Amino acid sequence: MTAPRYTPLVESLPSTVPFVGPETQERARGRPFRARLGANESLFGPSPRAVAAMTLAASEVWMYGDPEMHELRGAIAAHHGVAPDQVMVGEGIDGLLGLLVRLIVAPGDAVVTSDGAYPTFAFHVTGFGGRLHKVPYRGDHEDPEALVARAREVGAKILYLANPDNPMGSHHPAAAIRAMIDNLPEGTLLALDEAYVELAPDGTAPDIDPEDPRVIRFRTFSKGYGLAGLRVGYAIGARSLIAAFDKVRNHFGVGRIAQAGALAAITDQDWLVQVRTQVALSRDEIGRIARSCGLAPLPSATNFVTIDCGRDGAHARAILRALADRDIFVRMPFVAPHDRCIRVSCGQPEDLAALAEALPEALSAAG
Amino acid sequence: MTAPRYTPLVESLPSTVPFVGPETQERARGRPFRARLGANESLFGPSPRAVAAMTLAASEVWMYGDPEMHELRGAIAAHHGVAPDQVMVGEGIDGLLGLLVRLIVAPGDAVVTSDGAYPTFAFHVTGFGGRLHKVPYRGDHEDPEALVARAREVGAKILYLANPDNPMGSHHPAAAIRAMIDNLPEGTLLALDEAYVELAPDGTAPDIDPEDPRVIRFRTFSKGYGLAGLRVGYAIGARSLIAAFDKVRNHFGVGRIAQAGALAAITDQDWLVQVRTQVALSRDEIGRIARSCGLAPLPSATNFVTIDCGRDGAHARAILRALADRDIFVRMPFVAPHDRCIRVSCGQPEDLAALAEALPEALSAAG
Repeated sequence: MTAPRYTPLVESLPSTVPFVGPETQERARGRPFRARLGANESLFGPSPRAVAAMTLAASEVWMYGDPEMHELRGAIAAHHGVAPDQVMVGEGIDGLLGLLVRLIVAPGDAVVTSDGAYPTFAFHVTGFGGRLHKVPYRGDHEDPEALVARAREVGAKILYLANPDNPMGSHHPAAAIRAMIDNLPEGTLLALDEAYVELAPDGTAPDIDPEDPRVIRFRTFSKGYGLAGLRVGYAIGARSLIAAFDKVRNHFGVGRIAQAGALAAITDQDWLVQVRTQVALSRDEIGRIARSCGLAPLPSATNFVTIDCGRDGAHARAILRALADRDIFVRMPFVAPHDRCIRVSCGQPEDLAALAEALPEALSAAG
Repeated sequence: MTAPRYTPLVESLPSTVPFVGPETQERARGRPFRARLGANESLFGPSPRAVAAMTLAASEVWMYGDPEMHELRGAIAAHHGVAPDQVMVGEGIDGLLGLLVRLIVAPGDAVVTSDGAYPTFAFHVTGFGGRLHKVPYRGDHEDPEALVARAREVGAKILYLANPDNPMGSHHPAAAIRAMIDNLPEGTLLALDEAYVELAPDGTAPDIDPEDPRVIRFRTFSKGYGLAGLRVGYAIGARSLIAAFDKVRNHFGVGRIAQAGALAAITDQDWLVQVRTQVALSRDEIGRIARSCGLAPLPSATNFVTIDCGRDGAHARAILRALADRDIFVRMPFVAPHDRCIRVSCGQPEDLAALAEALPEALSAAG
């Protein structure tokens, strides 16, 4: 009986991590990437007003941030037409998903997700001992009907769906999500991850009564707002569920600079509008580059384009490696049959020029 | 069976939060505080190099931070003469304590702390269903011998001790902590919270082999380094324990600005030296102000001074309220007999001048 004595659950957990960062690859390679197109960051950057607000906050950072995040929650609530106590802010959607799982999933509890969906959600479910039930995609889309059916079958406490989806870039229209909510079995909470929704076609985000106890939705400042390194996400849900986060969250976890940057970002919607335009142009250009190499870009409702490389996972992985050899950082879906694809984030013209140069060579190298 | 279905543990948790921020009080009062002397923030601010680094990082914050925190962990390791894989960085000591408790404490497991010690640690233990055993202070010090004896008696998996202590400001010399470690029962991990140790007398921090499996120590950038609002703390411990954090942590939780600011801070030790000087002068001045009002300042090894107001908790709370009425934010210990005291953070001369003006009036008002 030597210290430390881990819990049996922790002893059973694998030591894998959900993502390896590009910096790790850069250290292994001994040189930086030329184009950073793998993490779905926004290469169009954040609002200059957010940068100014963060710079100002840096000089005041000897003070803790407001643990109630009063101003930021108020601004988010105003933006969405909900009440501040229907909004919780946390350390990215990642952090909020971890808290949600902790609130709801005890060891052995059933949770439903798609096979190949966001691995960090699965990491949290495993980390709290939940039983993950994975439903195959239907083509390149998550399958709402099959997800709901599985949730009913296994008595899932949480059903996770990302709309738009990562890693495929596909989306469902609002009506499909509404139908899904109406068909949820009793006792299943829909965790609706809308990380990319600001970049999706109008009509993708459904109207949901925030007091609907069957749904909690998640948004982030990491994608459209261009603040991935700030770590701020938020949840919108029923007051009682939002209040439950206070039982377990790290109350001072969203710091002073983070709150200031996010507040400035959400109040600069003009910036988001022009980011949407740049993302759309960039998606078109990535599609053009892919097609010029004989590959098939999938339709995207996000700030990335998933490209069908036409063969199997081994082939796509070879392309990914060959792109890395040419200093282009991209990622790819984890599971078959989606691992026939690579996933390229939108970028500036110079980033995409680098891609256009490297991709044909990488395809040749991959054979 | 309506959604959401919380875990039984979460259903049992109280809805209280460990701390109410000064911003909450300011909103209730309808006006700001004049002197912010309640949260043990560093009113001497962070290193200008840290501010410059954060400002630079703000322009790159569209990128996620390195999830391995390679540079920062390397700099911390170099500073302490340990290896980078003996260091974990997290969202403040608060965040790291939560992860440590999650790694080790299953429902019903015994944990030992002092009665009146850091409430956020107790929040985490309760949040994971641990059984908290609280040992009284011995005078104004935590009581290492009694803590160890209680840990042995209840088979504690974690024993928490802060050295220096908050809220009393007292400390034990390194030899006392060493003796404590040598007497720990089998299977008890000492969580040694050294949040304030940079401000303590030389000889307070013991030499500990980082591979000693009986101890994990915690440091923060929130106190001496003046970066409370950045939310960065770190743990030093055995490689296997440090690696275990990877099983459960929010891998991207410490963002890009946070890593940049902390890195610049730890490499500017000259700044810390002059902060120590300012803190020492400020402690003396707070002591002088207290004595001039007939109160008894306790010796402090921290950036605050705990002042014995000579009567009971009701009296000290009345003084606290009267100080707030005069726009001075201070806090006080939670439990008797320490709640006879108020706790005043070190500050700039103008902050202490405000205190010197308000304290005699507050004492009169409190009766």
